[in-house]
Amino acid sequence: MQRNPHLQKLKNQYLFPEITSRKNLFIEKNPEASLISLGIGDTTEPIPEYITESLSKNAAALGTIEGYSGYGAPQGLHSLRESIAAKVYSQKIHFNEVFISDGAKCDLGRLQMLFGNKVSIAVQDPAYPVYIDGSIIQGVETIILMPCTPENDFFPNLKELQRTDLIYFCSPNNPTGATATRQQLEQLVAFAVKNHSIIIFDAAYANFIQDSSLPKSIYEIEGAKQVAIEIGSFSKLAGFTGVRLGWTVVPDELKYDDGSSVKSDWNRLISTVFNAASNISQHGGQAVLEPKGWEEVQKLTKFYMENAKILKSTLEELGYAVFGGVHAPYMWVSTQGQKSWDTFHHFLERYHLITTPGSGFGPSGEGFIRLTAFGKREDILTAADRLKKSTYD
Amino acid sequence: MQRNPHLQKLKNQYLFPEITSRKNLFIEKNPEASLISLGIGDTTEPIPEYITESLSKNAAALGTIEGYSGYGAPQGLHSLRESIAAKVYSQKIHFNEVFISDGAKCDLGRLQMLFGNKVSIAVQDPAYPVYIDGSIIQGVETIILMPCTPENDFFPNLKELQRTDLIYFCSPNNPTGATATRQQLEQLVAFAVKNHSIIIFDAAYANFIQDSSLPKSIYEIEGAKQVAIEIGSFSKLAGFTGVRLGWTVVPDELKYDDGSSVKSDWNRLISTVFNAASNISQHGGQAVLEPKGWEEVQKLTKFYMENAKILKSTLEELGYAVFGGVHAPYMWVSTQGQKSWDTFHHFLERYHLITTPGSGFGPSGEGFIRLTAFGKREDILTAADRLKKSTYD
Repeated sequence: MQRNPHLQKLKNQYLFPEITSRKNLFIEKNPEASLISLGIGDTTEPIPEYITESLSKNAAALGTIEGYSGYGAPQGLHSLRESIAAKVYSQKIHFNEVFISDGAKCDLGRLQMLFGNKVSIAVQDPAYPVYIDGSIIQGVETIILMPCTPENDFFPNLKELQRTDLIYFCSPNNPTGATATRQQLEQLVAFAVKNHSIIIFDAAYANFIQDSSLPKSIYEIEGAKQVAIEIGSFSKLAGFTGVRLGWTVVPDELKYDDGSSVKSDWNRLISTVFNAASNISQHGGQAVLEPKGWEEVQKLTKFYMENAKILKSTLEELGYAVFGGVHAPYMWVSTQGQKSWDTFHHFLERYHLITTPGSGFGPSGEGFIRLTAFGKREDILTAADRLKKSTYD
Repeated sequence: MQRNPHLQKLKNQYLFPEITSRKNLFIEKNPEASLISLGIGDTTEPIPEYITESLSKNAAALGTIEGYSGYGAPQGLHSLRESIAAKVYSQKIHFNEVFISDGAKCDLGRLQMLFGNKVSIAVQDPAYPVYIDGSIIQGVETIILMPCTPENDFFPNLKELQRTDLIYFCSPNNPTGATATRQQLEQLVAFAVKNHSIIIFDAAYANFIQDSSLPKSIYEIEGAKQVAIEIGSFSKLAGFTGVRLGWTVVPDELKYDDGSSVKSDWNRLISTVFNAASNISQHGGQAVLEPKGWEEVQKLTKFYMENAKILKSTLEELGYAVFGGVHAPYMWVSTQGQKSWDTFHHFLERYHLITTPGSGFGPSGEGFIRLTAFGKREDILTAADRLKKSTYD
C-alpha cells in the first residue's frame, strides 16, 4: 500500500503544533517561567449564561421521550438555518442556502473535497494555513499566492493576478487583521465575475467589525451570490471553539460553467460524508441568535476588542508598527527587519509571551508576528506590563 | 469554473433521500396513513440519565471560568481516548492510537481523503453506501465488489478476490446483519497481510454482538494491527446519532510500503481539516464508558435486540427468510424473488411500513429489503401486528 503522494507534499508540520513543540522545549529549560499565550486564536471567556442554559437544557432533554432526537438533517436544524438567514443576512439569503457545520475548518476541508484536485486556487499571502494545506491534501497543484502587505493595503493587486477557479478570501483577515472595504470587495466580485471564478469568503471574524460602513458579508456586494460561497462560525462569535458550530452559505445562483448547481453538489457531498453538527451545539447556536443571546455575545466581542486596544497601544508606544486589531481580534506586528521566528523567540525569551511567527502564514508573512486579542484580561495586562517594563531584560 | 467530474459520477441520489421522497409522495396521496419507519437505522430511545446528566453538566460548565474550555486537541480529549483504550480495547490499543471523531460517517470521509484517488478498493456487496460514494467523490476508480449473500455465508470468497489497496469490511454488518466469525476475520487479516492491503474495519455495531465467541474488534485477531484501521461509534451504542461522537483507531504498527506511518499522516490530516468533536459530546462519551453509564447503555442494546426478535420471528412465521437480527440491529429479508423496490412499495402500501430496498446497498442486495430494529416498542408491536393481520389488505 503506497502512501498518498499528496500527503507527502505537505510541509513538515502544521504551524501550531510546531509552536507548541518550541514552547515545550522552552518550558523544559525554564520550568519556572509563567508563559502567556498570545499565539493561537483561542477564546478564553466563558460562554454567556443565556446560551449555556440552552445548551444544558437541550442536552438534558435528550434523556426524555419528548426531547430525544436521533439523526438530524445533514444540512442542520431548519430553525437554526432560518435564524442565521434572518439575523446574520437580514433575509437576503434564503434559509435553504445556509448549511450548518461543525466549524469553518471542517467545512473548508469539505469544500476542498467538493471542488477536487483539478482546480486552480488563489490564496491571500499571508493566510490561514488550512486553505493551502487542505488543497494540497486534495492534490491541487496550481496555487497562486496573492501578496497582502502594508504596501498594497493588504488587498491583492487584481490587475496583475492570473485567473484561478477558486479565490480564498478572508475578511476580517486572519492573520493580518485587515478588513476589506466595500470598494475592495466590489473589485473582488467583479474580478470573479469576469473570470468565472468562485470566491470562498471566510467571514469567521465578521462580528468583530466595528464600523458599519465595512461589509460584514460578501453578499452585501451586488452580484456576489453568483460567485461566492461564504463561511461563518460561532467559534469566535460566541466562544464556541470547543462546542463546534459554524455554517456555509452556498447560494442558489452559484453555477458551474455547465449551468449545474454548486449547491446541489454540496448538498450531495454533505449528505454522504457529513452527518450534521451536534444537535446540542445547534440548539446553543439558536440561543446565540435570539435577542438576549445576541446581546450577550456582543459583550464578548467588546471585551476582546478592548484587549486588542491594550496590546496595540502598548506595542505602538514601544515603536512597533501594528496593523489590524481594530475590526479583527488579530494584530499583525512588524518585526522591524527581523525574521519572524527570531522575533517569536525574542518575545518568548524576553517577555515570556507566545506569539505566532508571520512566516508560518506564507512568504509575505515574513517580517511579522501575529498577536491575538483572545485572552483573560489579567494576562493581557500582564503581557502589556512585561512589554513596557521589559521585565525579563 | 468546471464541475468536479467525480461528483458527476455519483448516482442520482443518496439512498435515504430517495426513500424520503418516495415516502413523501405516498403521504401526499394517503394523508391519513400512519406510517411506521423500519427504514433508516435511527435510534429512538432517550439517552440514559447518567449520560445526559454529564452532557448537561458539562454544557453548563462552559459558562463558568473554571469549566470553560476553547479548542481541544484535534485528536480528542486525552481522558476519553484513555477510556476507549481501556473499556473497548482492554488496553490492547494504546490511547494515542485512538482518535475521537464526530461520527463514523465523517471519519470515513476523512479516511478517503487520507488515502486519495490513486487507491483501489474492495467493498462488501451489499454495503453502507458511504464506502463507495465517498470514494467516488475522491476520484477513486478501481472499486471491486465482494458479493456477500446467503450462499457464501455473507463472507467474501477471498480465494477469487483480486488484491486492492483498501478493503472496507463492516461487522456486524450493515445492511445484512451478518457477523463475521473469528475464523473468517483471521482469513481476512491473512489476506490483507499477504497483499499489503489495509482493512478499514467498521465496528459501529460491535456492541450488538451477543455471543462472546464472536470478535467485537478486528484487533482480537493476531496481526491485525499491522493491517487494519477500526472505526467505532457512540451513535448506536448510546443513542448519540444526533450528539455526534465516534472514534477511529490507527495503530502505530500500520505502515505504508515505504515504511512511513499511516498514523502520522492521519494525525496531520485531522489537524488540518478537523478540529475535534464537540467538547460537550466528548464528556458525554466519557460518561458512557463509566461503569454506571456502561450498564445503562447495555439496556438500550438489549431493548433494540428485543425489537429485532419480535420482527424477525413475525416475518419468519409469515414464511420470509430473515438473516441478521441476532448480533446486529438489522434484518435482511429475502423478497422471495421480487425486486427490492417492489417489495419496498409492497410493505409501504400494504402494511404502511417503511423499509430499505436492498438494491440501494449494491447489486447483491437485489432481492432483499433491510429492516431496522431501532424503533419504539409500540411501533414495533404495531408493525408486527400489521404484518400478521395484513390489516391493509
